[in-house]
Amino acid sequence: MKTLLISRIDKPEVLAYAGEVERLLLSYGYHVALEGSTAIAMGREEDGEWLDETDADIVVAIGGDGTVLLAVQKMRRQIPVIGINKGHVGFLAELESGEVPAFFRNLQRRMRLELRMRIALSTDSEHLGEALNEAVIVTARPAKMLRFTIVIDGVEVEEFRADGLIVATPTGSTAYAMSGGGPIVDPKFDGFLLVPLAPYMLSSRPHLIDSSRDLKIRLESAKPAQIVLDGRGSVPIGTNVELTVRRAENPAVFIDAGKNFFLKVREKLHSL
Amino acid sequence: MKTLLISRIDKPEVLAYAGEVERLLLSYGYHVALEGSTAIAMGREEDGEWLDETDADIVVAIGGDGTVLLAVQKMRRQIPVIGINKGHVGFLAELESGEVPAFFRNLQRRMRLELRMRIALSTDSEHLGEALNEAVIVTARPAKMLRFTIVIDGVEVEEFRADGLIVATPTGSTAYAMSGGGPIVDPKFDGFLLVPLAPYMLSSRPHLIDSSRDLKIRLESAKPAQIVLDGRGSVPIGTNVELTVRRAENPAVFIDAGKNFFLKVREKLHSL
Amino acid sequence: MKTLLISRIDKPEVLAYAGEVERLLLSYGYHVALEGSTAIAMGREEDGEWLDETDADIVVAIGGDGTVLLAVQKMRRQIPVIGINKGHVGFLAELESGEVPAFFRNLQRRMRLELRMRIALSTDSEHLGEALNEAVIVTARPAKMLRFTIVIDGVEVEEFRADGLIVATPTGSTAYAMSGGGPIVDPKFDGFLLVPLAPYMLSSRPHLIDSSRDLKIRLESAKPAQIVLDGRGSVPIGTNVELTVRRAENPAVFIDAGKNFFLKVREKLHSL
Amino acid sequence: MKTLLISRIDKPEVLAYAGEVERLLLSYGYHVALEGSTAIAMGREEDGEWLDETDADIVVAIGGDGTVLLAVQKMRRQIPVIGINKGHVGFLAELESGEVPAFFRNLQRRMRLELRMRIALSTDSEHLGEALNEAVIVTARPAKMLRFTIVIDGVEVEEFRADGLIVATPTGSTAYAMSGGGPIVDPKFDGFLLVPLAPYMLSSRPHLIDSSRDLKIRLESAKPAQIVLDGRGSVPIGTNVELTVRRAENPAVFIDAGKNFFLKVREKLHSL
Repeated sequence: MKTLLISRIDKPEVLAYAGEVERLLLSYGYHVALEGSTAIAMGREEDGEWLDETDADIVVAIGGDGTVLLAVQKMRRQIPVIGINKGHVGFLAELESGEVPAFFRNLQRRMRLELRMRIALSTDSEHLGEALNEAVIVTARPAKMLRFTIVIDGVEVEEFRADGLIVATPTGSTAYAMSGGGPIVDPKFDGFLLVPLAPYMLSSRPHLIDSSRDLKIRLESAKPAQIVLDGRGSVPIGTNVELTVRRAENPAVFIDAGKNFFLKVREKLHSL
Repeated sequence: MKTLLISRIDKPEVLAYAGEVERLLLSYGYHVALEGSTAIAMGREEDGEWLDETDADIVVAIGGDGTVLLAVQKMRRQIPVIGINKGHVGFLAELESGEVPAFFRNLQRRMRLELRMRIALSTDSEHLGEALNEAVIVTARPAKMLRFTIVIDGVEVEEFRADGLIVATPTGSTAYAMSGGGPIVDPKFDGFLLVPLAPYMLSSRPHLIDSSRDLKIRLESAKPAQIVLDGRGSVPIGTNVELTVRRAENPAVFIDAGKNFFLKVREKLHSL
Repeated sequence: MKTLLISRIDKPEVLAYAGEVERLLLSYGYHVALEGSTAIAMGREEDGEWLDETDADIVVAIGGDGTVLLAVQKMRRQIPVIGINKGHVGFLAELESGEVPAFFRNLQRRMRLELRMRIALSTDSEHLGEALNEAVIVTARPAKMLRFTIVIDGVEVEEFRADGLIVATPTGSTAYAMSGGGPIVDPKFDGFLLVPLAPYMLSSRPHLIDSSRDLKIRLESAKPAQIVLDGRGSVPIGTNVELTVRRAENPAVFIDAGKNFFLKVREKLHSL
Repeated sequence: MKTLLISRIDKPEVLAYAGEVERLLLSYGYHVALEGSTAIAMGREEDGEWLDETDADIVVAIGGDGTVLLAVQKMRRQIPVIGINKGHVGFLAELESGEVPAFFRNLQRRMRLELRMRIALSTDSEHLGEALNEAVIVTARPAKMLRFTIVIDGVEVEEFRADGLIVATPTGSTAYAMSGGGPIVDPKFDGFLLVPLAPYMLSSRPHLIDSSRDLKIRLESAKPAQIVLDGRGSVPIGTNVELTVRRAENPAVFIDAGKNFFLKVREKLHSL
């Protein structure tokens, strides 16, 4: 089985740990390649393989939720991924380092995969990208200059002013959407969780919408707005735009480490 | 097509309107029977048929959401139901009186049904009942004497003290669960929405759990607790109990009046 | 200096500890009397003095916040009180047992008092009582059968339906009002904190009203309502009533143990 | 009595209305001057007087809450101000145009003033400015890159990560702080209302702190942060800073138009 290792590259101790994982995997008989930037950061550019070209069977993301999100975003086809947590409590990076040896030994016998819905955003003319956790629509400065209209199955069902709007997946319900006051949503659902940021009307509460619905978000903004996908980079979208939100064709594929989602939520909330 | 009429019986003007609906349906060629209590209230006891014995093809509930909830609760088999709203903005009672004639004329040509999940509650030894909107677990007096443990797929995932706990369906997300601060949930989902009432820890936020999960609620209470199903009656459950929450075998069956769920939410919120 | 000891009487280990405190105070030269029920629970009925008749200079309440609240409620004139915490993190019971000896040695040299506003509730015809933390208006069963109208300075400023209404002091902002979603309010303020319980409209948010305002609460209820003062006992108030909320003439008087209020809040929140 | 008129200048119809008010005031015997920018916008630069130099007795602000906030911010000494509302429901701009004639006729006989606390922000080395509604601490992009420590009377009482922090006055409790989930606070209080924006921990709830407290806010930020005072302009504050929050020496002075604060709140909430 061929594995591709991707590591957080701004922390030397995480990079060093990635080297350990590599040696462990080799000792178990895995083939191991390094993701391009990780290879460069380790001074082994020649061993690098990019996520959008690799033929690896699985991807191992070492760092935290951010590293897993990055890996998923960079893949062209969705390869099964497992995250190893080297930071704060992680949701997507499920494995703690102590669990790593047993996990990879067992993996050679049996692998259970879990699919996680992603959302795809587009305008009439352009595909904007996918997100596993959430897309956030904001301006550069908070001040309710954004007016949103939510259109479901062709009907304008809500209109509100807010500092921004989070469009999250159930997977993302434990990330930014939670700070915005959203509920915890079982990732077994396929749906869009809408959470307004500092809405002008308090009645604008979180909505959870089935992924089979036709969902559009109309935006009028006094200043150019932007979309941030999974907390990384930002796509400018101008001042007047209609966004279409869809379930992405290809869900993310996680290797199931057997953790209970709701128990992770509890542990995270208690560790805050 | 045989219809059974059930009306709110504590308002004479609603009863009078029920008589109008009866005449209208007869003029369209429907067979019409009256639900037992409605018949008595109209002084026509001999025309009464009880909801748990009727062979009607459809049930027409006249009044408000409470009348629809009552009708669904009293049916032995779930007969398609349509509600006519004679009170405040209704969610379940979809038809306004002005829409009634056209609706029933068209119904003879084509009927679209919408299934709505219900929840079934039981203890180890006893079936407690079903709810279309929600089951609420409370004591007689608010004072955080209730300690809840949520067990999902055999794992204790949360523990908290609260004045009570709402276990709602997506349909019920716009009812009592909304007052408790829960999100609006698309009724296309099959799931359990847990909303604690005045939780001692604020971190106890709403959870939405897929109906395929094995959900148990353990309760320790200083005083006898009770369960209220769809806001009607109450079942005593003692001071220490483990409740099993399941999707009820038989969903409620609504005759679709073509209203957009989210638009109804908006209208209701604006009419508050 | 004469001290009156009042202890939680339903926990033998707290009663035993109260005996220790008594011996400590005697060894420091304090005069010590026991509150009536405490004396009975200790089998020393003859040493009992009731809170509404005692001439003690200070009251020492041993147990938790509930014991302090009880002591304050039972005093006819407000005697300076200090609470010793033998339970969960306390707000009103400030002293931990390890701090007790140093505190009472120093107290003979210097005592700093802190006044804490209480609220007084009355109807047109009747004085209902005082509360240091909060008065809660509820019915026996949650179901939005209560309709509240808030009248400030003679103007009807809000009207809403809710399961109940908490009228708290700033001191009580960290108690039940916090579970209801209220803000943390500095006890240096003299004001009334209104927090609706599960309001039907979400726009009914917490209000903090200056104690100089003329505040009335009109209540219409389908079933008899009741008022619970500081979580203890309940006063029936019928189905239609206008309550007047005032600052009580006599504030509670606490002996200042030098704890920072906001730090206690933090510790309490983290210990949950 | 000399009045200075300041108008919203980006709406021709408001400027035209300002001309009407000027003629009305002249007909009542008031002396009238125009604020500098207003004069320029009206093509009467020679009639302009700047707010930081005028010797006017009262200021009339025509437009909405923004115009009133601007007027208060630009005054060197606080001159009594009255706002005329020409936009959405206003809190600070109390007069509706229909009430204008009667108000100014009566004003010549009797004027009641209401003082409204403002906050002053400073660092160790620099005075940053005053705010009547609120100061908001944010970065350019939401992503919890801000870590706040709240220090009250020299004690670190809370620490949290959030998208931003609103430091509002009671007057500002109905403005941006309300969108952030804060309570409605009677402007009779002198205090600081802290409302975190999208806090990472939900337990970070609104705090209301007496203005006699020594309040400091420590900020660590991954990217340069900024302070926005009353929604206008922004002051860069770098990535590591300790802010001191004080009650400003000079409160804003409003001419009381006899409106009930809480009734305005209700009307505003219902008009949303």
